[in-house]
Amino acid sequence: MIEDEGLELLTEDQARGLLATGEVGRIGITIGAQPAIFPVNYRLIDGSIVFRTAPGSKMSAAAEGALVAFEVDDYQLADRAGWSVLAVGRAEVIHDLAMTSKVLDAGLEPLVDGIRTAMVRITPTLITGRRIVHHPPPPGI
Amino acid sequence: MIEDEGLELLTEDQARGLLATGEVGRIGITIGAQPAIFPVNYRLIDGSIVFRTAPGSKMSAAAEGALVAFEVDDYQLADRAGWSVLAVGRAEVIHDLAMTSKVLDAGLEPLVDGIRTAMVRITPTLITGRRIVHHPPPPGI
Repeated sequence: MIEDEGLELLTEDQARGLLATGEVGRIGITIGAQPAIFPVNYRLIDGSIVFRTAPGSKMSAAAEGALVAFEVDDYQLADRAGWSVLAVGRAEVIHDLAMTSKVLDAGLEPLVDGIRTAMVRITPTLITGRRIVHHPPPPGI
Repeated sequence: MIEDEGLELLTEDQARGLLATGEVGRIGITIGAQPAIFPVNYRLIDGSIVFRTAPGSKMSAAAEGALVAFEVDDYQLADRAGWSVLAVGRAEVIHDLAMTSKVLDAGLEPLVDGIRTAMVRITPTLITGRRIVHHPPPPGI
């Protein structure tokens, strides 16, 4: 097990597996010169992170072609337990009808009312994950 | 109520109130040329977001002096309900002993074992929030 500052580093397979189980993740983008992070509900489809947004929204404009970070996590604070996964890749608006229909088949429904017909895909070039691990104190302490 | 693409825009006071209730948020930073998002457990102290990290870590180095995004959210997917808050501001490592002791008094304990004696503060210059709202369908539909 590889550790980094008290966190177990997950293998890429483990991280990808957790990414596939998530429903809400957060995308980091830049709007104007300001950094921003917004939650989106997503699915992992054919290895890509896919979410729906409004056509022509700030989100689709900012994400189009950009290198973005995407994060998913799950914490149980009472147990001091949890994990997080970070994926980094270029985002693009999906114009491919076959992919669009896969997304609809995957049941990716927006949580929000209103028009969310645009779909954005992030193709990760890097997926990393970390999990909190606790070690028993050394004997005699 | 102001809406943006199906989301209610919260007032700054409402957003700040939700930020004060959160325990785990996510910071967006750039490491090398790569964007990254990492979860941290935090407290809101004197209007600043404060979290602990390892001294000299990637996190403290990347955050020092940078304009960063910080996000907190809470979703109940079964109810299609949830909110998110985004704070943007400069991050800095805390060198002020009075502030350090306030952080310890606030009970901000790292979730992770090991050395987390460095403290980072984000002083937000912008706090925004969004909440999912659902409208009943118009009569006759």
